[in-house]
Amino acid sequence: MKLTDYFLPLKKDKPKEAEITSHILMLRSGMCQQSSSGIYSWLPLGKKVLDKIEKITKDEMNASGAIEILMPTIQPAELWIESSRYQDYGKEMLRIKDRNKKELLYGPTNEELITDIFRNNVQSYKNLPLNLYHVQWKFRDEVRPRFGVMRGREFLMKDAYSFDISEDNAKKSYNKMFVAYMKLFKKMGLSPIAMKAETGPIGGDLSHEFIIISKTGESDVFFDESLLDMQKLFDEIDYNGDLQEYINKYTSFYAATDEMHNPKETQNISGNLIKTKGIEVGHIFHFGQKYSKPMNATITNEKGQNLPVFMGSYGVGVSRLVGGIIEANHDENGIIWPKEVSPFMCSLINLNCDNEKCLEVSNQIYNYCNKKMIDVLFDDTKESIGSKLTTADLIGFPYQVIIGPKGVKNDNFEIKTRKTNKIINLSLNEIFNFINENMV
Amino acid sequence: MKLTDYFLPLKKDKPKEAEITSHILMLRSGMCQQSSSGIYSWLPLGKKVLDKIEKITKDEMNASGAIEILMPTIQPAELWIESSRYQDYGKEMLRIKDRNKKELLYGPTNEELITDIFRNNVQSYKNLPLNLYHVQWKFRDEVRPRFGVMRGREFLMKDAYSFDISEDNAKKSYNKMFVAYMKLFKKMGLSPIAMKAETGPIGGDLSHEFIIISKTGESDVFFDESLLDMQKLFDEIDYNGDLQEYINKYTSFYAATDEMHNPKETQNISGNLIKTKGIEVGHIFHFGQKYSKPMNATITNEKGQNLPVFMGSYGVGVSRLVGGIIEANHDENGIIWPKEVSPFMCSLINLNCDNEKCLEVSNQIYNYCNKKMIDVLFDDTKESIGSKLTTADLIGFPYQVIIGPKGVKNDNFEIKTRKTNKIINLSLNEIFNFINENMV
Repeated sequence: MKLTDYFLPLKKDKPKEAEITSHILMLRSGMCQQSSSGIYSWLPLGKKVLDKIEKITKDEMNASGAIEILMPTIQPAELWIESSRYQDYGKEMLRIKDRNKKELLYGPTNEELITDIFRNNVQSYKNLPLNLYHVQWKFRDEVRPRFGVMRGREFLMKDAYSFDISEDNAKKSYNKMFVAYMKLFKKMGLSPIAMKAETGPIGGDLSHEFIIISKTGESDVFFDESLLDMQKLFDEIDYNGDLQEYINKYTSFYAATDEMHNPKETQNISGNLIKTKGIEVGHIFHFGQKYSKPMNATITNEKGQNLPVFMGSYGVGVSRLVGGIIEANHDENGIIWPKEVSPFMCSLINLNCDNEKCLEVSNQIYNYCNKKMIDVLFDDTKESIGSKLTTADLIGFPYQVIIGPKGVKNDNFEIKTRKTNKIINLSLNEIFNFINENMV
Repeated sequence: MKLTDYFLPLKKDKPKEAEITSHILMLRSGMCQQSSSGIYSWLPLGKKVLDKIEKITKDEMNASGAIEILMPTIQPAELWIESSRYQDYGKEMLRIKDRNKKELLYGPTNEELITDIFRNNVQSYKNLPLNLYHVQWKFRDEVRPRFGVMRGREFLMKDAYSFDISEDNAKKSYNKMFVAYMKLFKKMGLSPIAMKAETGPIGGDLSHEFIIISKTGESDVFFDESLLDMQKLFDEIDYNGDLQEYINKYTSFYAATDEMHNPKETQNISGNLIKTKGIEVGHIFHFGQKYSKPMNATITNEKGQNLPVFMGSYGVGVSRLVGGIIEANHDENGIIWPKEVSPFMCSLINLNCDNEKCLEVSNQIYNYCNKKMIDVLFDDTKESIGSKLTTADLIGFPYQVIIGPKGVKNDNFEIKTRKTNKIINLSLNEIFNFINENMV
């Protein structure tokens, strides 16, 4: 993509409305724009990141055996009255009356609606286990929305719902999601840590949060340093194998959010206790028959008995992750995108657009990348050299290929790796090799 | 995908709530389910079709030079007050008050919001032309929702918005979208016909509807038979070339919806006048400064003058197309999916799951398809032969590969092409060839 054909409305100054780093950087790099309090439009660069996070999430959900559906944003109030959550949810729920005075709401989560779909379509144990998920916009009418997309009112969530014939089987479904979450966050270039969590308004007795570490995170977290070595534990796992032993091993190490932290439990841990800040990017719940009982979502088991189905729900904060990833990956000059979710792989910067040789070499590299299906943003604008380099650091793609008159003359070009800020010098031929080795 | 691992809740009987063919077939084939009046959940089979339509649409939009963004579903009322459409839109607009009594609405379309994004970010002619699009859920509070997803209240639309420095340039942007629409509908396996149309509540003086022909369509349409030969006109077109001559050629043939039909104009047409039924699946508008003037979205031109930008908007009914495609492609036994948008390419039907040989051959074909990345739905259930074949016709994938004990014994299997309902007999080896030739 040529920058002159693109829509990248950068902001030079720190926007007044932004308090936290990710929000500032997203506004400055033209990723999003607020349309009402806590409601954002995603501009091209932001939309690309959102899509990548969504795709990685879906791919791993599919690999785990979950099946994609799509529920609507607007739900009927009746279902929430059935589950008794209509009043409980309070003012965070956006309540709506349609032209016929029917009570609707903008879904903040989907336990009720999925339970309704289940009871209308599944009656027998033969159709279980079942895990249905969707990626859809939700709305929570926060009293004071802030922190940009990290705490927006309209936000994109992946939510999955599992259905099982027994408590034991439901735990197996829960374990699959535990593993899927460890894998999918890792595939986004993150180092997730699973922590025992409170269940809150979703309910149930078993719950884990998935946290990414960031100095600018929203809350304190505590964990055994040994967990950092456990990142590989789930890499090669077979979803149909016995997952319990892996999860037992992982959860034998201490890890807790501020709310669940108990210093007494940390006295005999194997590694050092780390206290740092974290950002919640996923949350999984096992809640058994909490919704199936009041909503009468029953199944017939092998003995012909009828009983409420056992359920769990599993959320990934897709839009929140965009902010969360930036909180965990930036420096004073801008964003440092992990390769896996970077909107483009590379900034190709032509320092002098009036120089024919520069243009020729730039075009050569640009065409090569396009042929190789490498997503490159080609800065072909007439901005100053300083401004181009500042922009490249701000928008933070993994690599910057810099083409200037000196480089052309000496066949010696600069390639910068954003993560390390290291610059290496390569000939044009070596650049093609570098591209093949690092960007394909 | 194995059917025993899938979620395909079929309905045997004609659902009471459905009046039209596509709605009946979508409910019977487990593609969707109503959650409130005019609001649907998309089940796995329906979601796959929705995704394919969305992808084809986006690919062609990108090819035309448009850039993807994503605006939120909830919009502030202020913007619509600025454009004077807040009252005009009447009861079809879903109006919402948040917890702070701020007036919001669920967007029925996005002219105002995109104009706001534009005026906040673009000031100079140097950034034009610009075409921004998104695919997002919309809401229109229809007084009597019906016809399933063809006229739902919550519906998925692709809407694009072009910005230009002059009336002439705006027409060029309009032409690009005209061509893109002819191409993208064709890529869905459809035969679109562009017809001059009224502009309605969007406004402006130039507008075309894109219609697909179906006996069960919603309204009368009239067109010169010669247009059927014009389908190839736009196939190889270069978006950066002169599109006007192609469009002049195409629009020189008579084509009009019921509202715009004028029998006097049809007296000297070259081919036969066809009167039939059609379904609107796309609509494009040029409306110049209708929104930019009241909302003060101005740009500076080359002479340093400030003037309101010239705009157009361009809609594709993504969720409506799912119903529309079925209306145009079905028989008495079920849906006949065009290859391009079919949820799966093939039904692989094992007629006898207790027969080891049948299982072995079925698995062989199943694994082969998976290796070739061909999306196959493998009916490995214990349903009766009759029920399996009926289901395969109902869900209507392009091909059915049928594996039974007789076939295994004689190495002679049946392959049915759903579109023609023709069955051919092939050996196992020939099946692999057939798959390579028709399904890859």
